[in-house]
Amino acid sequence: MTAGRVADRLLIAGVGLIGGSLALALKARGLVGEVVGLGRSVENLRVARRRGLIDRAELDPERAARDVDLVVVAVPVQTIAPLVATLAEALPRGAIITDAGSVKGPVVAAAERVLGRTAGRFCGSHPIAGTEHSGAAAALPDLLVGHRCVLTPTKHTAPHAAKRVRALWRAAGMRVEEMAPAAHDRVFALVSHLPHVVAACLVNAVGDAGSGSRALAYAAGGFRDTTRIAGSSPEMWRDILLANRAEVMDALDLFSGAFERLREAIARRDQAAIEAELARARTARRGVVLRGPGTVRRRSTPRARLG
Amino acid sequence: MTAGRVADRLLIAGVGLIGGSLALALKARGLVGEVVGLGRSVENLRVARRRGLIDRAELDPERAARDVDLVVVAVPVQTIAPLVATLAEALPRGAIITDAGSVKGPVVAAAERVLGRTAGRFCGSHPIAGTEHSGAAAALPDLLVGHRCVLTPTKHTAPHAAKRVRALWRAAGMRVEEMAPAAHDRVFALVSHLPHVVAACLVNAVGDAGSGSRALAYAAGGFRDTTRIAGSSPEMWRDILLANRAEVMDALDLFSGAFERLREAIARRDQAAIEAELARARTARRGVVLRGPGTVRRRSTPRARLG
Repeated sequence: MTAGRVADRLLIAGVGLIGGSLALALKARGLVGEVVGLGRSVENLRVARRRGLIDRAELDPERAARDVDLVVVAVPVQTIAPLVATLAEALPRGAIITDAGSVKGPVVAAAERVLGRTAGRFCGSHPIAGTEHSGAAAALPDLLVGHRCVLTPTKHTAPHAAKRVRALWRAAGMRVEEMAPAAHDRVFALVSHLPHVVAACLVNAVGDAGSGSRALAYAAGGFRDTTRIAGSSPEMWRDILLANRAEVMDALDLFSGAFERLREAIARRDQAAIEAELARARTARRGVVLRGPGTVRRRSTPRARLG
Repeated sequence: MTAGRVADRLLIAGVGLIGGSLALALKARGLVGEVVGLGRSVENLRVARRRGLIDRAELDPERAARDVDLVVVAVPVQTIAPLVATLAEALPRGAIITDAGSVKGPVVAAAERVLGRTAGRFCGSHPIAGTEHSGAAAALPDLLVGHRCVLTPTKHTAPHAAKRVRALWRAAGMRVEEMAPAAHDRVFALVSHLPHVVAACLVNAVGDAGSGSRALAYAAGGFRDTTRIAGSSPEMWRDILLANRAEVMDALDLFSGAFERLREAIARRDQAAIEAELARARTARRGVVLRGPGTVRRRSTPRARLG
């Protein structure tokens, strides 16, 4: 591999928001040779080519895998392992594979299973960034910058594979950390999958109200922020919720408990209990903001308003 | 009243985020004579004076009300009517009174009750803007600009009072609309009070998890947006939830219904049902963003990160 590069030929399998933004970041910094984009939608690949995300577009995994030294499988969680299996047949021996899935336990286990003897070349990744938009058109050169990326190496992962994958995300400006796949899934059920479910239910509750459509016209900043993630892809999130189902169900139960506690306090007009629950939330949230990454991702383009 | 002004002497009773931002906006545009600030905290009034929000600070309602021609009672909802009663004894006959409460039905009824024969001089207002911060220190000259303000005149309201109050908020850059108090409370239970409860419960659920404190360290943009409003004043929100209790309980029930539906779909691995609920939310939310005001209020100062 050429010095100073993360890859001579990088394959992005799934040139969407994350894969596309990664490609843009690496190209902007001159840290990658050729970027090959593999996809199923000719239209999306065309957008990716036009925007300069990729140098070459491929619809066929076997052609795409040729002479590649690093692969990022940035597709929906259910399809990661099957695609890893397909690609593995055509990839050069030394090529390293990672993914960008939001669920790690089952995804990493399935990827290692399909790779069998060569499981060492795989190291799972979860770049924690995004907007509610998707596709190559939504990719941004600084989407990943300053955000965390969780690597989930296992006892099967070759140290040099984890090292290459760590260098890849760092090159795109991410702060890389490591977690065990199961710990990752427990944490993200709480701070990502649960909020997603709740945001969707919030919008649906308002829609269910008789005055719902009128009410939505009055939704101000608070409602819009609280439900922003409800604008994301339903198919992608259905897959995430099912892939991490056990942890998600536990998180939903915790939420139900907190909700019932506050609901009961309001029902019985218990001022002290209401205030205590709200104060507890404020204190905990202050911790979140203080500990979070330096910048919260915002889209300021007019397009963002349509999400 | 001097031509081109909304008031010769404006009394802001409660120089917090909303009252303070209103004063700043009017002063920046030269649309007000003297601004008197009434408060209970010497420290907050000092900040208000130092920042130029008010020209004169008063701790005594009777002194504050002297020679005032317009009053904005921007205090917590439970204390609006009592303060209106106190001020009314000292205000000049022609002075118009409004408030800035997030709940209107009980507040407007109580204000009209305490004013008795002079109820016509009162017109309720709900300026729909804010951040999770509070106090005079948090006031911003453009906080209200471009956002909606709901006026809730009743059959008791004198037309000239509604007209003065409408001119006041428009002068601060707001888009003024009218609703009946009860309709207002139904709508805002859904799009404001419910999201607030849900955001607080989301933070508390994560706090309740064994891995909670670790999980909070990984909360990314989605969690932070979804829970932003959980950073607001617990006392203020306790009062709002209790003042609008019946409508809030109805909204919580609608949320419970939507939540149980999605929870059940995940529990029984029903892909189609999960996707349908998420897709319904996305569609409804797109409507929100399209119909909302032109700009979503954002604080970009470092201070905002501490909320």
